[in-house]
Formats: sequence, C-alpha cells, structure tokens
Amino acid sequence: MSLKMSLDELRVFMDDQFPQVKGEFEILDVAPLHITVRKLVEDKHLRPGGTVSGPTMFMLADVCMYLAILAMIGPKALAVTTNCSIDFMRKPVAHANLRAEARIHKLGRVLAVGDVLIYSEGEEAPVARASLTYSIPPERD
Amino acid sequence: MSLKMSLDELRVFMDDQFPQVKGEFEILDVAPLHITVRKLVEDKHLRPGGTVSGPTMFMLADVCMYLAILAMIGPKALAVTTNCSIDFMRKPVAHANLRAEARIHKLGRVLAVGDVLIYSEGEEAPVARASLTYSIPPERD
Amino acid sequence: MSLKMSLDELRVFMDDQFPQVKGEFEILDVAPLHITVRKLVEDKHLRPGGTVSGPTMFMLADVCMYLAILAMIGPKALAVTTNCSIDFMRKPVAHANLRAEARIHKLGRVLAVGDVLIYSEGEEAPVARASLTYSIPPERD
Amino acid sequence: MSLKMSLDELRVFMDDQFPQVKGEFEILDVAPLHITVRKLVEDKHLRPGGTVSGPTMFMLADVCMYLAILAMIGPKALAVTTNCSIDFMRKPVAHANLRAEARIHKLGRVLAVGDVLIYSEGEEAPVARASLTYSIPPERD
Repeated sequence: MSLKMSLDELRVFMDDQFPQVKGEFEILDVAPLHITVRKLVEDKHLRPGGTVSGPTMFMLADVCMYLAILAMIGPKALAVTTNCSIDFMRKPVAHANLRAEARIHKLGRVLAVGDVLIYSEGEEAPVARASLTYSIPPERD
Repeated sequence: MSLKMSLDELRVFMDDQFPQVKGEFEILDVAPLHITVRKLVEDKHLRPGGTVSGPTMFMLADVCMYLAILAMIGPKALAVTTNCSIDFMRKPVAHANLRAEARIHKLGRVLAVGDVLIYSEGEEAPVARASLTYSIPPERD
Repeated sequence: MSLKMSLDELRVFMDDQFPQVKGEFEILDVAPLHITVRKLVEDKHLRPGGTVSGPTMFMLADVCMYLAILAMIGPKALAVTTNCSIDFMRKPVAHANLRAEARIHKLGRVLAVGDVLIYSEGEEAPVARASLTYSIPPERD
Repeated sequence: MSLKMSLDELRVFMDDQFPQVKGEFEILDVAPLHITVRKLVEDKHLRPGGTVSGPTMFMLADVCMYLAILAMIGPKALAVTTNCSIDFMRKPVAHANLRAEARIHKLGRVLAVGDVLIYSEGEEAPVARASLTYSIPPERD
C-alpha cells in the first residue's frame, strides 16, 4: 500500500478544512499506515493542576488517526469516527507539547481500525493510548 | 446510597472549578447514581457540515460522569478518568443542544464505572453512547 | 420497529446454529430492541476461587447482543462482532447463573450498536457491562 | 524494569493454575513488558464457517496480558481484568493456530494497561487487537 497524500498535501488539507485549529497541530511524519502528529499545548488545553485535559488528548488521537487514514485513501473521502476507546495512563507533563503516533491495523472498504500512542514530548512512557474505528463512506461518482 | 451534593452545590462547584466553560453546561437533574446534564452548543463546537464535533461529545460524557460521581462522594475527591469507550452512532442535529444522561453501575473504593447516553435535544434516538471508568484517589487527612 | 423473530423462533435458531452450546443459554424474553438471556453456569465456566471466568461473561454478552439483533433483522443475516468493550465490575457469585439484558441503541444498515448488563441471578448490582458493535453484511439475492 | 519470572517459571505456573487449558497455550517468548503466546486451535474453538470464535480470541488476549503482567510482578499477585476493548478486524484463517503479542504500556501500583495484537500464524495482518486493564490488588504480608 502506498500513500495517496504527501506530508505537504496533508498539511495544506488540514489548514483548509480545520481553520479553527490552524497552527495547533503539526504533522511531523507520514508513511504508509503510520503518522506522527504534534499538538502544541496552550493554556486553554490545561486543567486545574496544569495538566493537559482529557478532551484535548481525545481530539489529538482522533485527528491523528483521521490524517493517517486520509494519507492512505486521499482527501475526497469523508471518514467519520464510530468508536474510540482511550486509556489515560499518566498525568501529562504540564506545558509540554504532546506527540501522537498512529498505526493503522486494518484499512477495509467500510471500516478502518488503528491504535494511537500519545506522549508528553521528551518523555519515554506514553500518557495515553487509544484505539479508533472510522467508517469510510462509499465513493460516489 | 444517598447524595452528598445537591443540585445547587454541584452547580456552584462546577462554576468555581471550571470557570473556562462557565455557562456551557447546565446540570438539569441529579439523583443517587444518576445525573442529567445539558451542553449548550455554540458555533465553536461545530464541524464542517454543521454537526457537533466528537471531542465536544467526549467532553460532555466525561463531565457528566464526573458530576455523577462527585454527587455521590462529595467535592473533596480528585477523581480522574482512566478509560472511556465512546460510540458515535448518529450525526447530531445541527445547532441543537445536547443532553447527556449518566448512570453509575459501580462506585467502588478505587474505581467507578458508568454509562452515558447523549441525545440531540428533541430527538428520541441517542447520538452517542459512552462508558467511562474513573479512578478515585484515596483520601488524605 | 417490530420483531422479525419470536421467542420460539429464536430458541429453535439458537439450537440449530450452535448445537455445541445447546442447553447452556435460555432466552427469557424478547421485545423490540431488547432481549434477556440466562447463562447456565457449570463447573467448566469457573475460575480458581469459584468465580465465573471473563471469557464466559464475554461470550454471554456477545450471544445476547447477537440474538437481540437477529430478533430485529431475521435469521438470514450473518452479523459479526467488530468491537466489544467490556468492564468487569464485581466478582460474580460462585455457582449462580448469569442473566444478561441487551439494549440496541442503533440498528443501522451496516452497523448495530448496543449495551449489555450482566447480573449474577438474585443480585441487584451488575457484575459486568459491555457495549458491542456488530457489522451487518449486505443482503444478497 | 526486569523480569520476575522466566519463561520456564511462567510455563510451570500456567500448567499449575489453569490445568483445564493445559496444552492449549504455548508461551513462546518473554521480555520486560512484552510476551508472545500461541493458542493451539482445536475444533471446539471454531464457529460455523470454520473460523475461530470471538470468545476464543478474547480469552487469548486476556491470558496473554495476564502472563505479561505476572512476568513483571511475580506469581504471588492476583491480578484481575477490569476492562477489555477488543476489535475483530479480519476473519481468522480456519484451523490455523493463533499468535498473540502483548505490550504493557503502564505497570502502576494499582492498574496495568497494555495492548495485544492477534495473528493467524503465517499471516502478516492481525485478525484482532485488544487493549486491557488489569487491577493489581495490594500485597498483604
């Protein structure tokens, strides 16, 4: 399987489609069935105690898998999340950016399934893990 | 089991602890092991197509279970989400508010487990379902 | 929505299709989007300590949702589980039978999603909860 | 972190504690936070159509994570599964054995979290993925 979108094409697509989060996500690397995305952590993503909020980590896992799938199927498809199971394992480091690594295990005609690991940058142990299923709508001509 | 926090006490606690989302959540009803919370949907919660975003629904499920637990154990405990499995089942109605109903199935010494159903207000079929586990830290004197 | 299979039709279907577990499951009640199934617990389902094993509870949740779906779509479809998230919340009572109650939240053209609660018979608090997604293959003529 | 149980010690423990499945599981390899386990597939594990049943794959994921944890904490602890989220992604090859690879992401004082990938032996793409949380009871002297 080969990529249908390059790193640059993914970046342009992201800025075009999600202008409201422009500058918050950086796509670091893409390869067939793999992608790495950085989330810039700002004050608005923090909870009391200085830690990154759960919804911020959920959104990062969701965006990361979405981009991993689009890289494989191209920008025309409207994939939607149908399930996410996420485990919050450690308290993220306050004010550190997050790095997410997605791996697609199945890229079917109808469903795509993969895992995401999220790290506080500079740390070795992941702060969260997630598995996600996306539904891929049939193409229309 | 009886409530340790009334509806009014939960509302005051929520405003105090989460001033950044003040006015976005309305606690509608609370009973032992049950709670109902409304999320006011604003433009910033929408995705392309006018639908409510996944992270917004995740946050609502998370807040709803958190408040259901605090109502039972009181405001002193610092409960944290350890797992959430969420299914996005239908596209939410554009611009309709969301209503979440949480039910606690287990309230243990260390872990609490429950389910949340999320509806677009005015609709009968749920748009999402979630199950969440919270870790309840030991009390310190 | 109305039932496509009666209680008796489901029982006959179950015995025909799964002869290897004949007599282990009793369908107690069926209604649109709801079903109740009893699992007879035998020594082979027990773990050290006399408690019912996790795989036994998983199988019960899986069978219960499968029958709830078949009751709605009829016996011709070959539905398969795509995801199950299960929480084991309490130790089941040793040697007590299990009772599972399934509720379907979404019955789509392609995916069905529902929740199952499992009880040790005679107890009020559930021992496990599960949410399951089934994929429903397209019909062929 | 280093192993508290060797490959041989794990094998002896498994045969002692779970005599009812003796010979069904082969521990192939163990390393800190990683383990590989083979499940010998027999006729009783098959569903109509010749494919391995869901409960059989669930049990393999559960056993694999359990052994990965015991290898790290030693045989004295009584760890129990609290959550499993499993995705069935492909139909297993009929009559092929299964191979499961577990990776522990967090080994805390109270909770352990990890992922398992399951393969039909000889195939490159996984048939299932699972994430599991185990509760580790406090030690008593």
